Amino acid sequence: MSENKSKRMAIYPGTFDPVTNGHISLMERACHLFDSLTIAVSKSAGKSAMFSFQERLDMVKQASGDKSMACELKVIGFEGLLAELAQREKAVAIIRGLRAVSDFEYEFQMALMNRKLARDVETVFLMPSLSWVYLSSTIVKDVARHGGDVEDLVPTNVVKMFEQKIK
Amino acid sequence: MSENKSKRMAIYPGTFDPVTNGHISLMERACHLFDSLTIAVSKSAGKSAMFSFQERLDMVKQASGDKSMACELKVIGFEGLLAELAQREKAVAIIRGLRAVSDFEYEFQMALMNRKLARDVETVFLMPSLSWVYLSSTIVKDVARHGGDVEDLVPTNVVKMFEQKIK
Amino acid sequence: MSENKSKRMAIYPGTFDPVTNGHISLMERACHLFDSLTIAVSKSAGKSAMFSFQERLDMVKQASGDKSMACELKVIGFEGLLAELAQREKAVAIIRGLRAVSDFEYEFQMALMNRKLARDVETVFLMPSLSWVYLSSTIVKDVARHGGDVEDLVPTNVVKMFEQKIK
Amino acid sequence: MSENKSKRMAIYPGTFDPVTNGHISLMERACHLFDSLTIAVSKSAGKSAMFSFQERLDMVKQASGDKSMACELKVIGFEGLLAELAQREKAVAIIRGLRAVSDFEYEFQMALMNRKLARDVETVFLMPSLSWVYLSSTIVKDVARHGGDVEDLVPTNVVKMFEQKIK
Amino acid sequence: MSENKSKRMAIYPGTFDPVTNGHISLMERACHLFDSLTIAVSKSAGKSAMFSFQERLDMVKQASGDKSMACELKVIGFEGLLAELAQREKAVAIIRGLRAVSDFEYEFQMALMNRKLARDVETVFLMPSLSWVYLSSTIVKDVARHGGDVEDLVPTNVVKMFEQKIK
Amino acid sequence: MSENKSKRMAIYPGTFDPVTNGHISLMERACHLFDSLTIAVSKSAGKSAMFSFQERLDMVKQASGDKSMACELKVIGFEGLLAELAQREKAVAIIRGLRAVSDFEYEFQMALMNRKLARDVETVFLMPSLSWVYLSSTIVKDVARHGGDVEDLVPTNVVKMFEQKIK
Repeated sequence: MSENKSKRMAIYPGTFDPVTNGHISLMERACHLFDSLTIAVSKSAGKSAMFSFQERLDMVKQASGDKSMACELKVIGFEGLLAELAQREKAVAIIRGLRAVSDFEYEFQMALMNRKLARDVETVFLMPSLSWVYLSSTIVKDVARHGGDVEDLVPTNVVKMFEQKIK
Repeated sequence: MSENKSKRMAIYPGTFDPVTNGHISLMERACHLFDSLTIAVSKSAGKSAMFSFQERLDMVKQASGDKSMACELKVIGFEGLLAELAQREKAVAIIRGLRAVSDFEYEFQMALMNRKLARDVETVFLMPSLSWVYLSSTIVKDVARHGGDVEDLVPTNVVKMFEQKIK
Repeated sequence: MSENKSKRMAIYPGTFDPVTNGHISLMERACHLFDSLTIAVSKSAGKSAMFSFQERLDMVKQASGDKSMACELKVIGFEGLLAELAQREKAVAIIRGLRAVSDFEYEFQMALMNRKLARDVETVFLMPSLSWVYLSSTIVKDVARHGGDVEDLVPTNVVKMFEQKIK
Repeated sequence: MSENKSKRMAIYPGTFDPVTNGHISLMERACHLFDSLTIAVSKSAGKSAMFSFQERLDMVKQASGDKSMACELKVIGFEGLLAELAQREKAVAIIRGLRAVSDFEYEFQMALMNRKLARDVETVFLMPSLSWVYLSSTIVKDVARHGGDVEDLVPTNVVKMFEQKIK
Repeated sequence: MSENKSKRMAIYPGTFDPVTNGHISLMERACHLFDSLTIAVSKSAGKSAMFSFQERLDMVKQASGDKSMACELKVIGFEGLLAELAQREKAVAIIRGLRAVSDFEYEFQMALMNRKLARDVETVFLMPSLSWVYLSSTIVKDVARHGGDVEDLVPTNVVKMFEQKIK
Repeated sequence: MSENKSKRMAIYPGTFDPVTNGHISLMERACHLFDSLTIAVSKSAGKSAMFSFQERLDMVKQASGDKSMACELKVIGFEGLLAELAQREKAVAIIRGLRAVSDFEYEFQMALMNRKLARDVETVFLMPSLSWVYLSSTIVKDVARHGGDVEDLVPTNVVKMFEQKIK
């Protein structure tokens, strides 16, 4: 109701190694619910990372920029606690995609911890498009490493980055 | 961004037989994310219903009215397809509480069907407060039927309605 | 290898109240794996049944007959133990669709019991098409009862039967 | 350590409609952990009950009496809240068998509620023998109703009771 | 029906590090359903691999050869995309064992991806014998590493290979 | 009943990297059920370990010693098979905390394997306090590494050890 409320911001965190069509679809959905969306690319992406932090940051910026989104979109890098970032940015929500049961358990645990660390930030679970339900960054890397075609699975700019990596 | 967007409405559907502290907590959370919240009380509540439609409607109105919510709140009755109601009311989101795995599966299925029936309405899953995670209307009725104390589990007005029912 | 083996038969049991596009898709998939498929329509369909046994039998016959299947297809009614039917019909496999976690648990239990009752019959789990993953007879009936459109969800002949029922 | 502690009592509640080999196996396991075990047969067994309260009580008494158990065993009937019974009987634990995921969720919810109602009583989950993992009273009744052989699934006295029921 | 159909081939892929009694049991089950079974041993087995590719290949060949199987059995090594291998070999099915919920989620995702990559190949889920339900290569390696007895868990030739490794 | 029975011992194994308030709560619960509790700290804690074996051993001893427990408590280190340790120590039970579905699956598998290796030792699953349900050693380390406050999550002595580690 207040001025402040009419500008609600949500954060969508991830490693995006790489960003997939499933991620893009989730951004579009989140954009219908909030006034602005901050995509927070995690600096560290674990040992199995294929793309560097800079590559992932660029990749997400380009892929999300190619789409006309229904809200203000910002892409940032981050390290440290997500809950603190959310508070600092005055986000009202943390966006998480919900895919499967094993996902759900971990997400539930993370969400409870984040609520403890940042009381005012709600974790909001959205469902990816049915078409991307089998998609994960891990499975996409697996397909690409084995010479499979990833054109239907990731944005065009990521296809090109894969071609350079795999060569 | 647009005028329209700054007045986003969400629907929180349920049978509320009876409304519990968990439901109330979810309403409060949803109210931080949207400009207005329509609580849609389902006319039919199955064979194991304890309270009539009118009782459930009154109960939810009173219980939610006792709290100062951070958004406009409306309580309505409904029958028919939820997806159609959501479209008719121009809701951007359907709110669902997410408690457990079995919940999740059914909710996932419902959300996919609702997305098919109403493309523009996103199902948004929120987590109840940890304190109410073990709560369900069914378990509350069970406790009340066996003479257990439900004071900590449901709003005050529902406690009274239970006392009248059980006598 | 033996003559016998080259004519492997599978049974696909269900209540089919009503048969959905998901069921039809599973029949097509099973037909690629076996020489013949016997669809066994259960006489009893529980209290929430909408269609009579005869209606369900006819409905499945017509819906499966409308498709050109890659194997011999037979539709029969049955009551009694599925395991005994499978042995009597010399089936090598019982076909089950696998949708979700809650499904899985029950299916696992049933499959173990059926293996105990009929050692030679293997329960074979197949995945429905992604497009029908949210479909169940229950949810279809729910949509139809509330006046929703089921044209994309069930075969044409079932759409007509719904129209007659609901009127 | 104290006198009192060396006489720990556990309660194993259920509808036992009917008692199965899985239940008996769980009683034996619980008896190795506690000094005495009270089997609490619930008076009400829902609409799908096959055996009366008296039949279920007798059935459990006979079946458990046929086995030499490693602890004191008592069979009682109960209605009302399990948590209150547990407190009244000074039980330190409520025994629950853990079979599957769907089980687990419901059990978790019940255990949290019981802990709220009776702080001093711990819910203890035990795993049934692998051989009985597919067993449930519901599936046993299903097999029996359809003329299947239940000899390997339930104690001898229950086999006889089934024969009389089904006739 | 066609000549082609009466010679249906299935692929059973895995790392088999090591092959367990559960794997052998699944091969036997799959052999009752198909005319021939190709066991595809993955070249890469991850960082926690205990046996080399050649050892795993030999181990599977010997262990499966010791059993008289009901179908033609072939053991091959493979790298690259399973879906492509399946298409190249004209398999009608990919065999997967289904053990637990966490399994199921990952398997479901893989199966959907494989279906996308190879439309004509069906993923077929079979249930291991109840006796091997707790078995996994990981848990077997764990037992062996800690000096536990694995004789009941893996084929005889694998027991010997463990003895040489662990020494 | 026998002398022997009145002194029942349970083992609570873990890596405790670090010990959390959830672990301490589970120790207290287990102590109400058994005469003595042996906390077995695993020597190896995997690659992602933060604390050395000696640190973890000291940490558990101090944290559990700070609480007055309702039973005899012993803290030991162990390597090798848990099942063998349990038998050697004449434990009647292995205590495991049950948190989530993914937990449950793995725990179930481990429990079945341990039962195979040590028939007389029952795996007993207990539920942590609701307040610690979101807690795991992994998530605690994550919070600490990112400079978050862990005071409410772990015993006081662990807070200090974290401060020294992170500096």
